[in-house]
Amino acid sequence: MANPTAAMLVIGDEILSGRTRDSNLHFLAQQLTDAAIDLKEARVVADDHDAIKTAVQELAARWDHVFTSGGIGPTHDDITADAIADAFGRHIDVREDARALLQAYYDRSGITMNESRLRMARIPDGATLIDNPVSVAPGFTIENVHVMAGVPAVFEAMVASVLPGIKGGDPLLSRTIRVNRPEGDIAGPLAEMAARHPKVSVGSYPFILNSRFGSNIVFRSSDAQALEAAVKDFLTLMPEGFEP
Amino acid sequence: MANPTAAMLVIGDEILSGRTRDSNLHFLAQQLTDAAIDLKEARVVADDHDAIKTAVQELAARWDHVFTSGGIGPTHDDITADAIADAFGRHIDVREDARALLQAYYDRSGITMNESRLRMARIPDGATLIDNPVSVAPGFTIENVHVMAGVPAVFEAMVASVLPGIKGGDPLLSRTIRVNRPEGDIAGPLAEMAARHPKVSVGSYPFILNSRFGSNIVFRSSDAQALEAAVKDFLTLMPEGFEP
Repeated sequence: MANPTAAMLVIGDEILSGRTRDSNLHFLAQQLTDAAIDLKEARVVADDHDAIKTAVQELAARWDHVFTSGGIGPTHDDITADAIADAFGRHIDVREDARALLQAYYDRSGITMNESRLRMARIPDGATLIDNPVSVAPGFTIENVHVMAGVPAVFEAMVASVLPGIKGGDPLLSRTIRVNRPEGDIAGPLAEMAARHPKVSVGSYPFILNSRFGSNIVFRSSDAQALEAAVKDFLTLMPEGFEP
Repeated sequence: MANPTAAMLVIGDEILSGRTRDSNLHFLAQQLTDAAIDLKEARVVADDHDAIKTAVQELAARWDHVFTSGGIGPTHDDITADAIADAFGRHIDVREDARALLQAYYDRSGITMNESRLRMARIPDGATLIDNPVSVAPGFTIENVHVMAGVPAVFEAMVASVLPGIKGGDPLLSRTIRVNRPEGDIAGPLAEMAARHPKVSVGSYPFILNSRFGSNIVFRSSDAQALEAAVKDFLTLMPEGFEP
């Protein structure tokens, strides 16, 4: 059976202006690979209602799951929750369960609830809350879209809250062989080998190290025997210059 | 006059599997901001012909410029050039100018030309070559799409080759004020202040440092006077806890 598919939507002007380097995509990509869910596409859009709405609609229609990061805080530029409610035609307002979570946390911490903080309790009708063990203000899941915060510590905690509830496919196995020769030397035999092993995905990832070109050849399959056969075939073709 | 707009398309299974952490988006975002070109959207797609073709068509129709990274090497999974030729309905084959560049480089370096390396001379009809001072194999510009390599050292060199030929808008000025208080404390006055300064874009970017919440407030405008007025207004509102 094919693995479930997923997309990520990163929301934030600060990524597109180069002010902030996104780290959530890389984190999520690794987590999904471990969970045998195939991340097929990622997008980054600005803090713009229509851009968020359109991207969520397109991605939710195309893939099994969509994970978003960013734009669910208390400030005027945090418009993700409203844009996503709009994308699904749902009503949105302060929801009592989310407000109660925040109020209890603020009472414990001596923080004053105010109108801005109350914005973080705006949850679309019918959405399920995502637990936030770091700063309490919850994310939410609406249909197949999981809406999470952008601050990495909070995003990562929310991913840990959401993923156990999502069913993955067969775990993907992988082997990497580093070849200290440029891709152009090995591309021909590599292509022939890849064609002989249809159950194995073979990728070549070039690098430059100390001014020399090399390639990491990555073999991926959910079939352990097929994977080993492809690696063995490759090592026969590459008698020199590789490091298993 | 509004700044020119741009999108980035990152092409590569290795980013979506979490094997590789992309750095090209962050680099390009900073370069475009410096050049007064507004990066409006970014996407990451797999090494898949239809995914690349569709994304390029959508992005090229929507924005003034599209910058791609990845998938133009010599191996069987490098399919970007063919997918982009297809996106524009152009014929693609080994082109003599690109072949000559590669041949001269290989002759100088004692490298053998072979069928795989010749793949890197596949350039769509009508495209302009992008200089690659690192490893010679060129990128290309076709209509408003700039097609570049994924290896960061090569991508960055190609961006340096392309950007001087693109006209930017008015340089964007920015000021950042770090506030050592959580966003929820300041969001109300911040929103009122932002509304009073329509020529200035005001963003709030939360962080967690030593278990304490803080926010960087970023002011952006191409009008220096308007920018300073907004910052001054903000500082009046925030008598404590900020670091200019």
